[in-house]
Amino acid sequence: MSSFIDKLTKRLNSINSHICVGLDSDYNSIPDFMKKNRDISDSLFEFNKNIILNTHDMAVGYKINLAFYEAYKIEGIKALQSTTKYLKENYSNIPLFADIKRSEIGLSSLKLKEQIFDWLGFDCIMLTPWFGFDSISQFFSDEKYGILIYVHDSNPSASEFQDLKLENGRRLYEEITIRVMQTWNKYGNIIVEAGVTYPKQLKRVREIVGEDMPIFTAGIGQQGGRVANLRGVFGRNNKRLIVNFSRDIIYNFKEDKDNYFKEVKRNVNKLREDILREALLKG
Amino acid sequence: MSSFIDKLTKRLNSINSHICVGLDSDYNSIPDFMKKNRDISDSLFEFNKNIILNTHDMAVGYKINLAFYEAYKIEGIKALQSTTKYLKENYSNIPLFADIKRSEIGLSSLKLKEQIFDWLGFDCIMLTPWFGFDSISQFFSDEKYGILIYVHDSNPSASEFQDLKLENGRRLYEEITIRVMQTWNKYGNIIVEAGVTYPKQLKRVREIVGEDMPIFTAGIGQQGGRVANLRGVFGRNNKRLIVNFSRDIIYNFKEDKDNYFKEVKRNVNKLREDILREALLKG
Repeated sequence: MSSFIDKLTKRLNSINSHICVGLDSDYNSIPDFMKKNRDISDSLFEFNKNIILNTHDMAVGYKINLAFYEAYKIEGIKALQSTTKYLKENYSNIPLFADIKRSEIGLSSLKLKEQIFDWLGFDCIMLTPWFGFDSISQFFSDEKYGILIYVHDSNPSASEFQDLKLENGRRLYEEITIRVMQTWNKYGNIIVEAGVTYPKQLKRVREIVGEDMPIFTAGIGQQGGRVANLRGVFGRNNKRLIVNFSRDIIYNFKEDKDNYFKEVKRNVNKLREDILREALLKG
Repeated sequence: MSSFIDKLTKRLNSINSHICVGLDSDYNSIPDFMKKNRDISDSLFEFNKNIILNTHDMAVGYKINLAFYEAYKIEGIKALQSTTKYLKENYSNIPLFADIKRSEIGLSSLKLKEQIFDWLGFDCIMLTPWFGFDSISQFFSDEKYGILIYVHDSNPSASEFQDLKLENGRRLYEEITIRVMQTWNKYGNIIVEAGVTYPKQLKRVREIVGEDMPIFTAGIGQQGGRVANLRGVFGRNNKRLIVNFSRDIIYNFKEDKDNYFKEVKRNVNKLREDILREALLKG
């Protein structure tokens, strides 16, 4: 089995896109026509399948926030399971990210690995660094397991702690990014997340990690980030940036059975082109 | 419905114990006699039921780390569901803690609330502070939902970031504890966690939160913490400390069907007495 980082960089190099599609599908928000004659599990899965069918040739990756499924009990979790199974069977070349924002330690971290990698087949687990190295120690040495560390997120209160200034002059997110680069990433399977809504911090993270490490970013659209804020952070050959969209892609259009997914596709393509244009403007 | 903090302090005041029982039950580790003629879900549930039957009169609370169930797929999640249902139906006066160490934001945080409180019926969700106030904004104003913030955990690498020194002279965990007290806890439904394995930090957390806020602690036993390190942190009337044990309680004894749970009970009682003795030594 190839390493996570090989799979991800191969994907980034092989398609002309930076877009990660966030399948954060909420049963309350998917269109009613998907729910007709279907239970919760099937509605969610069929919705996801249609999103995938219309985006897979432009998707650098798929990201799933598990909370949207777990809120719908066993039914929701079955939809999660069907979706990851479908992706692995049909699009095994597209990296699959588990957005779980957890920070388990020791034995429970091993259990998280069993859930996310062994059962659900994700390629990369998205974690917070709060508990330190213990949160990744159970799987950091196996290159096939990707690990994403949230070093500076896009949400409004992200700066509350992540931007605190340390005695050594660094901000907390800088210290964590440096630590991740210097001591955690021995096996090259770690990448970092930094939000577009904090452009200065995003640029600083690129400086720290260098040109080769892929950066995962989010926050364009409803969260207020702008495509222009991506300038200078695309990395080596403009091919080391993953830009996630969830709500702004999957819910953009109203009840219109015949056109809903065509519009999704059109919108993803537009975002893809906007970002590519920005990438070319890089000095 | 009463507030979380009322329920918790009532429980702390009404029984002569500080012990929280961690039902972090791993199918791989429960005794074989529990598995005979049972599927994974029933084995885990029956094991938990027996632990509960033998500990409920000494348990200030029950804590469940969801990762141990989620690793066993739908079967494990069904056991989780049966366990929380059983506890709510039979011991609704005992606070139930969801150990999930997550830090979701905005909409996904709302979904986490639906999973943990509405579906599974937990009384308190255990979160990391990494993403700031956004992680609790969806439910912080409803007093029936308890929120526990991990301000300084017991694991070996907890100090990697939590003890970083800030420009203002404080350590990161202190800054976060202060922020939680000053700006997050408007509705009095927040408590904090600090590990016994860092006695100095645990004492400092008690200083910051004052005598009334319950502190949740862990790390005695296999993790290396000692009962003596609890001195001075019991809070008002020695009734504001919750001491969690998981592995050290539920797995302490070998395959012996007739005595396994009697030994669990005996051991919990011994730990209960050790801690009470320490509480009385407080100046």
